[in-house]
Amino acid sequence: MGEIKQIAVIGGDARYLELIKKLACQETLKINLVGYDQLDPGYFGVSAVDLNQVEPSQLDAVILPITGVNVNGEISAVFSNQVVTIPEDWFSRLPNHCFVFTGISTPYLDKVVKCHNIKLIPLMERDDVAIYNAIPTAEGAIMLAIQHMKITLHDANVIVLGLGRVGLTVADKFAKLGAEVAVGVRKASDIARASTLGFTGFHLDQLTAYTEKCDLLINTIPVLVVDKNEINTLKTDALLIDLASKPGGIDFEYANQRGLTSIHALGLPARVAPKTAGEILAKVIDQLINDSK
Amino acid sequence: MGEIKQIAVIGGDARYLELIKKLACQETLKINLVGYDQLDPGYFGVSAVDLNQVEPSQLDAVILPITGVNVNGEISAVFSNQVVTIPEDWFSRLPNHCFVFTGISTPYLDKVVKCHNIKLIPLMERDDVAIYNAIPTAEGAIMLAIQHMKITLHDANVIVLGLGRVGLTVADKFAKLGAEVAVGVRKASDIARASTLGFTGFHLDQLTAYTEKCDLLINTIPVLVVDKNEINTLKTDALLIDLASKPGGIDFEYANQRGLTSIHALGLPARVAPKTAGEILAKVIDQLINDSK
Repeated sequence: MGEIKQIAVIGGDARYLELIKKLACQETLKINLVGYDQLDPGYFGVSAVDLNQVEPSQLDAVILPITGVNVNGEISAVFSNQVVTIPEDWFSRLPNHCFVFTGISTPYLDKVVKCHNIKLIPLMERDDVAIYNAIPTAEGAIMLAIQHMKITLHDANVIVLGLGRVGLTVADKFAKLGAEVAVGVRKASDIARASTLGFTGFHLDQLTAYTEKCDLLINTIPVLVVDKNEINTLKTDALLIDLASKPGGIDFEYANQRGLTSIHALGLPARVAPKTAGEILAKVIDQLINDSK
Repeated sequence: MGEIKQIAVIGGDARYLELIKKLACQETLKINLVGYDQLDPGYFGVSAVDLNQVEPSQLDAVILPITGVNVNGEISAVFSNQVVTIPEDWFSRLPNHCFVFTGISTPYLDKVVKCHNIKLIPLMERDDVAIYNAIPTAEGAIMLAIQHMKITLHDANVIVLGLGRVGLTVADKFAKLGAEVAVGVRKASDIARASTLGFTGFHLDQLTAYTEKCDLLINTIPVLVVDKNEINTLKTDALLIDLASKPGGIDFEYANQRGLTSIHALGLPARVAPKTAGEILAKVIDQLINDSK
């Protein structure tokens, strides 16, 4: 079954527990946990070590936290009460074939990659991760909608803006729960696609024609699309949920001024389904490590 | 459009706002609000009065709170800071044709009905109300499941016990969200029905054959069906939600002892969708009043 591969998991949050558990089941992987000293030792049959007990030149993969490494070389480790710092020269000692996984890249990592020719893989920027994450994101939006709306999703008028990875899954799930879903997009082909999927498709320019009877507006487009004009036409009890990454696509300040409830919901997979979020990362990391040789 | 009917709404909670709004739109109804003195006057174009300003002999319908009337003749009125008491002889002055709506009956109401031949309609005991309420109940269960589970509902193993009004809607909605749904029932015909609807149907006696891989168990049967035996076979991170009326069908004490999260979720429609819950009551009350003559 091939050689044993050495992996260092350095820091991480709740979803990393599932990730570690999944990787630890594989006999071909040897896991070193750094920044897990507060975790019950042997929780996964893997014990926690200090960074200086790990020899970087022996590693086949490094898994950094979702948030990456900050400007001081520090990483976030919720299962440790020590600050874990990775010096720049530590990265220089990694072998060429070694993968360095992170959620997102950071200026520090960008610099390290440039200087030491590191194979950096920002997981959150990958298409497969984003597609898998669309499901827990949509479920998070469902949870928020039920929590904050005074009516059922069943028979509610829902507008979804954008028909990308997240928009498609969100529109689909709300429709399956009995909502009337209208999807606002820019491309004629997306209007057609919305229609073939059973939603009402419309061009974003026509948004105000749909906002008046809207009970819930969910945005997935990362540029400003819901501005004063659109907000003025919404009912006062309409709920706004923005799933697009910062700064989102809704004028939150104006929505608040008008007394509307608006939620910029970021990082839903980790919040509503940390175990699934960890499994998703494990699946993708596992594929990349095993495909590499 | 016929004569004007006089209605007294005496007390009530948030869902009564929607109920009053719906009834107030009808020109054939004259609404008297008792126990609404804290509400913005003229909120619905209807002003609040005291009980002694209402002449019972002129009424065609009385709408009491969902909780009915307590042993002292007091009713719950969340929009008033006064105690509203309805003396027994007040009921005796209602005309014969007058409907008295309540959520549930109470010993006080039972006595009044007996002595004064009152047409009491406990709304929560009606089949139509229960069927309409199945939707907000199922949405409440979805919200709780997403809040408390660490995995997505998509691909989760869900057991639903009972295939009545609530069980059917719950099984349907969880399946539509991508869960693997198995339904435990007693009748052979219900096992068949579960199967035709796309769920796995099984006899309750076989429950422990399904509990081992279960991520979420939702009970809708109002007798003890999830006992120590069944609880012992559940995973420690399984979630238990009981939607059956008190005392429910789960041994909560034992579930807690075993460290399982178990939730007895009562009154979900009013909690997750007060506006829809009010609309449901308005629809049923309206039908009964208008069908009466």
